[in-house]
Amino acid sequence: MNKQSSIAAGSAASFRPPQLRQVTVGGFFGPRIDTIATKTAHMLFDRCIEAGMLDQVDPDRPNPGIRIPFQHGNTVTTQMFWDSDFGKSIETAAYALYRHPDAELERRVDDVIDAYARLQAEDGYLNSWYQRIQPGERWTNLRDRHELYNAGHLMEGAVAYFQATGKRRFLDILSRYADHITTVFGTGEGQLRGYPGHPELELALVKLARATGERRYLALAKYFVDQRGQTPNYFEEEAKVRGEADGAFWFGTQEYNQSHEPVRDQRRIVGHAVRATYLYSGMADVRTEFADETLTPALEGLWSHLTEKNLYVTGGLGPSAQNEGLTFDYDLPNASAYAETCASVALVFWASRMLGRGPDRRFSDVMEQALYNGALSGISLDGETFFYENPLESRGDHHRWRWHRCPCCPPNLSRLIASIGTYIYGLAKDEIAVHLYCESEATVEVASRTVTLTQRTAYPRDGRVEIEFGALEAPARFALSLRIPGWASGATLAVDGEAIDLDAHMAEGYVRLEREWRGGERIVLAIEMVPRLIFAHPNVGNDQGRAALARGPLVYCLEGADNGSFLNGAVLPAEPAFRCEAIDDLGGFVRIACGGRRERYETGALYRSTPPSREEGTLTFVPYYAWDNREPGEMLVWVRREAE
Amino acid sequence: MNKQSSIAAGSAASFRPPQLRQVTVGGFFGPRIDTIATKTAHMLFDRCIEAGMLDQVDPDRPNPGIRIPFQHGNTVTTQMFWDSDFGKSIETAAYALYRHPDAELERRVDDVIDAYARLQAEDGYLNSWYQRIQPGERWTNLRDRHELYNAGHLMEGAVAYFQATGKRRFLDILSRYADHITTVFGTGEGQLRGYPGHPELELALVKLARATGERRYLALAKYFVDQRGQTPNYFEEEAKVRGEADGAFWFGTQEYNQSHEPVRDQRRIVGHAVRATYLYSGMADVRTEFADETLTPALEGLWSHLTEKNLYVTGGLGPSAQNEGLTFDYDLPNASAYAETCASVALVFWASRMLGRGPDRRFSDVMEQALYNGALSGISLDGETFFYENPLESRGDHHRWRWHRCPCCPPNLSRLIASIGTYIYGLAKDEIAVHLYCESEATVEVASRTVTLTQRTAYPRDGRVEIEFGALEAPARFALSLRIPGWASGATLAVDGEAIDLDAHMAEGYVRLEREWRGGERIVLAIEMVPRLIFAHPNVGNDQGRAALARGPLVYCLEGADNGSFLNGAVLPAEPAFRCEAIDDLGGFVRIACGGRRERYETGALYRSTPPSREEGTLTFVPYYAWDNREPGEMLVWVRREAE
Repeated sequence: MNKQSSIAAGSAASFRPPQLRQVTVGGFFGPRIDTIATKTAHMLFDRCIEAGMLDQVDPDRPNPGIRIPFQHGNTVTTQMFWDSDFGKSIETAAYALYRHPDAELERRVDDVIDAYARLQAEDGYLNSWYQRIQPGERWTNLRDRHELYNAGHLMEGAVAYFQATGKRRFLDILSRYADHITTVFGTGEGQLRGYPGHPELELALVKLARATGERRYLALAKYFVDQRGQTPNYFEEEAKVRGEADGAFWFGTQEYNQSHEPVRDQRRIVGHAVRATYLYSGMADVRTEFADETLTPALEGLWSHLTEKNLYVTGGLGPSAQNEGLTFDYDLPNASAYAETCASVALVFWASRMLGRGPDRRFSDVMEQALYNGALSGISLDGETFFYENPLESRGDHHRWRWHRCPCCPPNLSRLIASIGTYIYGLAKDEIAVHLYCESEATVEVASRTVTLTQRTAYPRDGRVEIEFGALEAPARFALSLRIPGWASGATLAVDGEAIDLDAHMAEGYVRLEREWRGGERIVLAIEMVPRLIFAHPNVGNDQGRAALARGPLVYCLEGADNGSFLNGAVLPAEPAFRCEAIDDLGGFVRIACGGRRERYETGALYRSTPPSREEGTLTFVPYYAWDNREPGEMLVWVRREAE
Repeated sequence: MNKQSSIAAGSAASFRPPQLRQVTVGGFFGPRIDTIATKTAHMLFDRCIEAGMLDQVDPDRPNPGIRIPFQHGNTVTTQMFWDSDFGKSIETAAYALYRHPDAELERRVDDVIDAYARLQAEDGYLNSWYQRIQPGERWTNLRDRHELYNAGHLMEGAVAYFQATGKRRFLDILSRYADHITTVFGTGEGQLRGYPGHPELELALVKLARATGERRYLALAKYFVDQRGQTPNYFEEEAKVRGEADGAFWFGTQEYNQSHEPVRDQRRIVGHAVRATYLYSGMADVRTEFADETLTPALEGLWSHLTEKNLYVTGGLGPSAQNEGLTFDYDLPNASAYAETCASVALVFWASRMLGRGPDRRFSDVMEQALYNGALSGISLDGETFFYENPLESRGDHHRWRWHRCPCCPPNLSRLIASIGTYIYGLAKDEIAVHLYCESEATVEVASRTVTLTQRTAYPRDGRVEIEFGALEAPARFALSLRIPGWASGATLAVDGEAIDLDAHMAEGYVRLEREWRGGERIVLAIEMVPRLIFAHPNVGNDQGRAALARGPLVYCLEGADNGSFLNGAVLPAEPAFRCEAIDDLGGFVRIACGGRRERYETGALYRSTPPSREEGTLTFVPYYAWDNREPGEMLVWVRREAE
């Protein structure tokens, strides 16, 4: 039944996520998953189909031709990526169906799967763009056209749908396609030595392997990881074959797609942010499955480079619209931040996979930071509109949209939220790691036992978490590791009322309780959760003299709806007296207020010789994820602050 | 001899600049002009010729073909603009030859002129790109390919060279070309109703008319102004003729080239900054020459929109690299400011032409602001390297370059500096306006007298200016108008020792002394020049809590060479005690220092929970124009400041 173990080559210490069916989520994420399940999942199909995607996939419909204009010197249209949008929408629907069986939604998914079944070529190939719009050109431009990326997202959708419904049809279709890809790519004679221009297939193949128990998909994932960036560069060779002039690649450098050097040599996160984080996710998965420590220096170096020099306080990354990605160290502009929703979503993916080697707060803290802030901001509270960019400052003109020419973010974030249960835990042979806290119930296998864990908590409203083991058939020795967030100013832990000395049990930011568990134990973790100011490195020039406010995992912001306009005229006192108030508005959250000064100006001149006058006022902060859910207005994360 | 009056239709109150030969400049600009004359002017020819420009112009040389790749969907290469680079280089050389007769430089100019003479078509047409690289395509893409823009710069060069050397050959060549253009463009039968995609020819034709006394060139300038933006839009019609798909224009909107509506309807500065300011310069010239007040609401509205919502404190404009131009109101980011050197140069052009209706400090203050800061920063003190972008903050990686694929800025700024004498004064029938202060000697015609004015001043080192009239043959009644800068906290004026009540004589920011002058009068103007802080409108979010420092017309900055790194950790006290010190370094300037705090950080983490510690230190400011002339390092204009 648990196929995962049957393919594992990683050591017993390798950690893998539970399957979605193993964790039932309530609390903070419960209503959000309900919204995805009952509303967003349907909407994704509506909007994909409105955009014309099913017309492209279904071979029995008239060919829609080009609907979205080419860009980048007439080589690419986002229409080439439509399979991925369907893949992610099917994945979202699959997770939705766990929670809310819905015959109508299931029928819609089956219709799309049926179209793909009819589309699939004799040899297993499956790509609606190349089969219907540009036939005969398959495998000629891996660099730009997301061909293998599309395959990956369809596979992830197929795995999820199989696990949700038990229906194998889509999984079989995609397994056939994966088998076909296995014959096409590799280092054998007559095989293409290519790899995805936009990574994604690597991590999808690991999922496919875990779901099917087929190690050959792991081998293919590892091939793609190993081959990337080898000399000669495949994308350059491929461009020559296409007759492309030297230097015609619109991004100039293969850093854009992280094929500029072999992945094991990489230490700096560069290029397109989503490509980067998907690649590193696949690398981490390969490390976990093959216990391949040769990937560790790269993974650690890339992680450090991101988190020490290139990560927004919201867990956003990639400041630039030009390459949808990274620029130079400490380049973290606020108003113009690109910080694509998909990049924060992918950072959750990467961080969760870095936990494959075991609990380590460096990864789970960032996973939580990206999840609750830069990712979650990407969807409105009603589940109907979406941010593509997630700036940390707005003059009032940045709003979520219904749909986008490149609609990658809505289904990506939706599938993450709908599957959040799988991110809460990490499971090894003899250890359960609790990475995230959320009201939930999990049933998992550990130490050859079936163990039930119930989390009771209002987290992130407050930091008290009760974890209760269900009854065990017989006592079992295993470890339970509980994350103590790096932001916590303090924490206490008790097992059945007996206080635990945290320091004595702390490893990599987790309290590790290894003992014989008898079942029924009640663990109470109390994490101090008070408003805290965050200060940025002096190289982040625009954040100097400013502070960001956070409480628990949530980054806060000033919003026009509470604070009027000219938010850059708001000044925190050096030692703000914060007041926290739980309110029901905006889905329920803790509002934070404090006294502060507001600057007033007398004239409308662009420049003046006198400083503004100041008056005392109140500053009211709301969680960043919740902004732009009321009337339009300014927003600001990094707020000016008086010095001591 | 003074041809200008022979073409004037404007009222007697119209003000025109003196010719270069009428003003000899020393003081602040003297050594800078010497550097241009003895070094930069030669270098411009070296680098134009190295780039291959003469190969393209000279019909007797092998055709060089495409040297600079096409961009914008393969429609444009900056190589199409090479004639303009030669035009501006010839203009620079002409001004250089006034100051330093130089047979070698004159021969180099003559060689280029000779090539143009041989290139010119039978019908007068003259454009090296269309005659040699894309023959047969002339007048098919006015929007993108700078065809009329090139004509304008060649004309400006021809006028300057004629005035400098008395040689008519190049002027005659360009007059023939202007005559040809007059036959091609217009509202008559069979004529093209087009106008420059990149404005420039309008103001050049006014120069040509003033130099040749030919009113038909004024009429053509007015036609281009009047026709621009009429319906149907010429560029859209022209694109249809080329078979270009609807919406294929890479900038989407004709706001990019200011043809989105008739110029008289325009009130908002939009699009490409240099195109905009060149256009408005031509509009102001047409207003002056035709006394056409129907242009005034547009010129005033555009001016207000720029100066009240879109102008950097340095006199830079156009924050965005994407369109090399304007974006939205108050969008004035510092580190990423595009603020092209050419745009500040062109703002000097526009402001000077807004003075065609008479002295008005609104225009001359901005002319001075752009000149001394955003323009002058564009060239190194040694005259050998150039900025294209002029950000107001640098992390230490922004440096002047030797040359650029689009080398518009070096000759543009060089010709401005070398001709700065013509911007100092405005001349009307019975009035001399002194717009700028600089050690200089001028001989001008006013009230039918030849009048000599000598300015003795160390301006902008200090604000004391002595102006002495030379002897007059006979007393003459005319007005002398002296600008009192808007930034001055005070000023006194005396004529032959007799104090003048400024308020009683003030008009539009000028002290207007209308009297019978006998010759030999000595006027002493003392403008208070103390360091002052400037504060920005609250809508400029990134400048809040910060101040810029200026003294006289000069904006100052912190530079790494004096202040080390982490300049955003420097904090001005609320009431800084500034110390001014005249030093000889960097060409001589007044250095300003004050006490201030510097923040120190204990760890290298990207985010931390404790604010930085502070220590007292000294902040040392240098003029913005002088930055990046020592070792590489950070630079910052808007400096954090303690509140009161």
